[in-house]
Amino acid sequence: MSKQFKFNPKLDLAIERSIDAPVRLVWEALTKPEHLKEWYMPKAWGRVSRAELDLRPGGIISIDIAGPDGKDSPNLGCVLEVVPMERLVWTSMLFPGYRPAVFDDIPITAIMTMEAVGKGTRYVLTALHRTESDFQTNKTSGFYEGTEIAVDQFVAHVIAMK
Amino acid sequence: MSKQFKFNPKLDLAIERSIDAPVRLVWEALTKPEHLKEWYMPKAWGRVSRAELDLRPGGIISIDIAGPDGKDSPNLGCVLEVVPMERLVWTSMLFPGYRPAVFDDIPITAIMTMEAVGKGTRYVLTALHRTESDFQTNKTSGFYEGTEIAVDQFVAHVIAMK
Repeated sequence: MSKQFKFNPKLDLAIERSIDAPVRLVWEALTKPEHLKEWYMPKAWGRVSRAELDLRPGGIISIDIAGPDGKDSPNLGCVLEVVPMERLVWTSMLFPGYRPAVFDDIPITAIMTMEAVGKGTRYVLTALHRTESDFQTNKTSGFYEGTEIAVDQFVAHVIAMK
Repeated sequence: MSKQFKFNPKLDLAIERSIDAPVRLVWEALTKPEHLKEWYMPKAWGRVSRAELDLRPGGIISIDIAGPDGKDSPNLGCVLEVVPMERLVWTSMLFPGYRPAVFDDIPITAIMTMEAVGKGTRYVLTALHRTESDFQTNKTSGFYEGTEIAVDQFVAHVIAMK
């Protein structure tokens, strides 16, 4: 399985956490829709109304965020790599089945890796961008403030699963 | 391995050929740069000056077309799926390592499949588009006229390899 991407600090966000829980639970919290719904959206900002994840290359990732007006905002992407308890990759550049995507927000590829360290897990989320400008926009818009909060919620959720 | 994409005649081009050669040679002609250079560009239109293909998910596909003015036009994409002698998928929506791509032409995902039929091979190239407008543009610009010619050159090259 490829680990072909090169981290570029000018283009890529990386968030790393040590989680006091086994890799098995981290993988479950990341990939099961009923768990993903609990941490993906900062709780003070909104909630996930629906989540779907087909864990195979070309599979769907679909996460709807409930809006304050009752309308859901869809987020649709394509799963690229699945190595259970090691690595999950998806992108919003493609729709399910690898179809080139149409989008109006900034597209990213998200790479989530995990590895056992003692009885715990080292977890890293990396988000790849097209350009420095895209990265800067996501940094200043609050998008990555939300992502940091979501990762903290993720860690808390995994701990609560023990 | 996923076969998650749904063919949509309003969005997708499919070109099918029966090739009087074994699957092994079809795969070789498709994936080895020294062969790919021989058929990828319609001979009357130009030639491939350089080809690179790293056959793994996240790997590079890079094909430079020699221009009449001595300048090369690069084409860069990302390999998504590799099932030897069955299926190859790449996309120009992503750069190698799954980085979201920057492009100025119309992006596609290309899916190439092959299967043994008697002593020959059934070969199908499918190109997925974002929109009907993208598909129409590629149809009327000559891009798909060139693709049909390239597929015919591909078939002739495979036959010559026997």
